[in-house]
Amino acid sequence: MSNLAPSQLVKSLEWRYATKAFDPSRPLTAEAWQALEKALILSPSSFGLQPYRFIVVQDPATREQLLPHSWGQRQVVDASHLVVFAARTSVTGVEIDTFINLIAKVRGVTPESLAAYRGMMSGSLLSEGFKAVAPHWAARQAYIALGNLMTAAAVIGVDACPLEGFVPAEYDRILNLPAQGLAAVVACAVGYRSAADKYASLPKVRFTAADLVKVV
Amino acid sequence: MSNLAPSQLVKSLEWRYATKAFDPSRPLTAEAWQALEKALILSPSSFGLQPYRFIVVQDPATREQLLPHSWGQRQVVDASHLVVFAARTSVTGVEIDTFINLIAKVRGVTPESLAAYRGMMSGSLLSEGFKAVAPHWAARQAYIALGNLMTAAAVIGVDACPLEGFVPAEYDRILNLPAQGLAAVVACAVGYRSAADKYASLPKVRFTAADLVKVV
Repeated sequence: MSNLAPSQLVKSLEWRYATKAFDPSRPLTAEAWQALEKALILSPSSFGLQPYRFIVVQDPATREQLLPHSWGQRQVVDASHLVVFAARTSVTGVEIDTFINLIAKVRGVTPESLAAYRGMMSGSLLSEGFKAVAPHWAARQAYIALGNLMTAAAVIGVDACPLEGFVPAEYDRILNLPAQGLAAVVACAVGYRSAADKYASLPKVRFTAADLVKVV
Repeated sequence: MSNLAPSQLVKSLEWRYATKAFDPSRPLTAEAWQALEKALILSPSSFGLQPYRFIVVQDPATREQLLPHSWGQRQVVDASHLVVFAARTSVTGVEIDTFINLIAKVRGVTPESLAAYRGMMSGSLLSEGFKAVAPHWAARQAYIALGNLMTAAAVIGVDACPLEGFVPAEYDRILNLPAQGLAAVVACAVGYRSAADKYASLPKVRFTAADLVKVV
């Protein structure tokens, strides 16, 4: 397999930045988007349960509706692709059964043979105490996918901008998420930077390794 | 810049899996670890505030202490590197001022010129209502770094295993995190898979694009 050299990984991560201005005339190639969609799908998650959906908003009218609820950030309308990460707001036995059946199908075993795994998930996720935790748990899993998407984009030379600055209730309403047991937790615009984006050349601001990393 | 081809990205992400058995005799090369450490440091975060610390547990005795509080998952002791993601449990004006001063230094401007940005952060993060949200907000940022680390590892051919199954209070105690305003939210073991890890060859279980991705 042909990996990236570690030094090249660092170059890609230094190249990326939270893109403020996208070039609205440059859509992603089909190949690039398919790889990023696959990166979303392949994201690891707690128990493997994938307690989220990725809403890819490509309809211009819907994007315009989201804009005023996004503090006017133009990435929402200008980027090639806009991904809204919608996390489940609760977990029920239905999701666990659906997932168990999927494992059984993919791995060619019976659902019954997965009873211990099912019991472990149920014990953790269907307990009374977990109800209040569930939305946070699901949101965290969605954030793994966000981190994965941004890094995946960077290493194939695609720009991205994470977007937390929006009104979740309005996104939920416009995208009809509550009826699906979902809530918008974060978004990410993906595309190519505008040559005019002055933010591209600003030096990155990060604490030093001595501040951020503690070896014990 | 030499990027990864989109098809190669997908291959790397298909190659990765939650490594259950690491080869304890194979440490990461210094070059690989330095790149992954840099990936952690370069992770994007809300406002750029980096409300976390990465605790890299390399002391074997400390790893042994963590093991019984990790459901006995051997990755904790066998992997080359063990990263505990410790998120801030609160935000105060001190963190905001420290960050504003850092921006000023890196970008060669005065802290006063950043008053509007400071005001925006303070308005959001120092409000009374944010206090209860702060630990969740910080944890989500740490999860971006987790997603970033796992993808960064995959594209340079390094194995990783995310670890949510541990007793946070015990990790906090052993790593002395509360005294630093931090709490352990997730961990990730990094190294090289053991040739004997049967999980490496199991087919991945993911919902289909039709299930997970909704284009609107």
